[in-house]
Amino acid sequence: MPSQFAKKFIVGPGKAVSLAKIDPRDDSAFKGKDQAKAQTQKDAEAIDALQDKLYAEGKHSLLVVLQGIDCSGKDGTVRAVFNTCGPIGVEVTPFKVPSPEERAHDYLWRVHEACPEKGIIGIFNRSHYEDVLVVKVRKLAKPDVIERRYEEINQFEKMLSDNGTRILKFMLHISKAEQAERLKERVTDPAKQWKFNPSDLEDRKLWNDYMAAYETALRRCSTAHAPWYVIPADRNWARNAAISRIVREALEELAPKYPPPDGWDPKTVVVK
Amino acid sequence: MPSQFAKKFIVGPGKAVSLAKIDPRDDSAFKGKDQAKAQTQKDAEAIDALQDKLYAEGKHSLLVVLQGIDCSGKDGTVRAVFNTCGPIGVEVTPFKVPSPEERAHDYLWRVHEACPEKGIIGIFNRSHYEDVLVVKVRKLAKPDVIERRYEEINQFEKMLSDNGTRILKFMLHISKAEQAERLKERVTDPAKQWKFNPSDLEDRKLWNDYMAAYETALRRCSTAHAPWYVIPADRNWARNAAISRIVREALEELAPKYPPPDGWDPKTVVVK
Repeated sequence: MPSQFAKKFIVGPGKAVSLAKIDPRDDSAFKGKDQAKAQTQKDAEAIDALQDKLYAEGKHSLLVVLQGIDCSGKDGTVRAVFNTCGPIGVEVTPFKVPSPEERAHDYLWRVHEACPEKGIIGIFNRSHYEDVLVVKVRKLAKPDVIERRYEEINQFEKMLSDNGTRILKFMLHISKAEQAERLKERVTDPAKQWKFNPSDLEDRKLWNDYMAAYETALRRCSTAHAPWYVIPADRNWARNAAISRIVREALEELAPKYPPPDGWDPKTVVVK
Repeated sequence: MPSQFAKKFIVGPGKAVSLAKIDPRDDSAFKGKDQAKAQTQKDAEAIDALQDKLYAEGKHSLLVVLQGIDCSGKDGTVRAVFNTCGPIGVEVTPFKVPSPEERAHDYLWRVHEACPEKGIIGIFNRSHYEDVLVVKVRKLAKPDVIERRYEEINQFEKMLSDNGTRILKFMLHISKAEQAERLKERVTDPAKQWKFNPSDLEDRKLWNDYMAAYETALRRCSTAHAPWYVIPADRNWARNAAISRIVREALEELAPKYPPPDGWDPKTVVVK
């Protein structure tokens, strides 16, 4: 069950979402920047401890889906929430333009292959949702094919969930003005230019179409077993604090435990 | 070229190694614990910055092989050296008992599949060296098959190196007494019991055989393109400081750079 905190961000199953009505600078869930940052660090440490138990127990996996328009802060989220865990037992998969082999399969094939095994936290930087976002906006598939996908995705995620994967999906919600600032930084900062692609500007022109596609995906694919959360993301610290808390709570609900000795008795084992 | 620092730990190509003559508590490379810890943290931060460039540039990959007897500190090394980087662009692969599918292939097949692509740091927790260590000590393959492997491994690593992968191999060298302490902790600490397997005690009885197998692997498979380093590992802080510095130096030698704009001109791009 989502907590009172998580409910501030969750999209109720079947509920219509108007992104225009959600302020990307909203930080009302927090008592200021310093406190939010301190809480994020504590939550990251709690996630680290919980992840060790998740790994040791090997009963569940956690799948964190990060979606958002260019510059919405997906990489920064991973660093803030998961660097304390480190790379052991945490797998990040960035989904880029599909390869010829990936395109020769159905759109969920590469996603399924990247799903975390039991004990592992899997993080998707973009995901199968691109197949109802960029593919829809750029008209890369026929409307009836895309229409079919929402339910296919729900069924796929239900199957994952029924087989031990806890799924959390975060839409990082930034304003068009904030994206402009961040894109300008990418264009001018030599350490960030590699992240910029002129096609990002084409996508920016299609902003409203993307928002509409997001709203449809959020409405049709937020389910009890795989909820969507809309995270105001103009302020990095508020974004990190929201996601770290929701991830922590989900892990606490899974309540992983160190397994007891398997087939041996601590009382009789002697290390010589 | 290995630095003066790295030379303290490196195994010269073809050189015989006597592990009994290397003190697992040796910390002469450092000026005390506090300074070593501070240096490790600085090196981890430098590795983080270099890894971002490695990823951006996408020209090379780094493969870090961690080998050592049970409790030698492989996981702890990853945390100390690579948690600052976090999970983006860093892949940890633990090699366990081979699955039926893996066993149906040659022993390098699963290893090859796990090798890091360009831009990525791959960390092997155990590796193909198990095929000349546990396989040799436990007599899981015929002597002539094992004998062939040293050269096969050298050829395989040469091919990886020639194709853009920098390889660093670390043998975490702990004393038998230190292993006893750590095994006892695993037996008694409920948070660590899941890491203990009674077969670890069988391996412990074969300590001398393992050391002999390591000495052969170190002598025959330390090459200019894929050197072995023997790291005194009874003291975690000395182990971390040695490895973080050698990894940092290897990345500095690769000297990854942020790539310039590809097919666009920062002067003419306008973000509207």
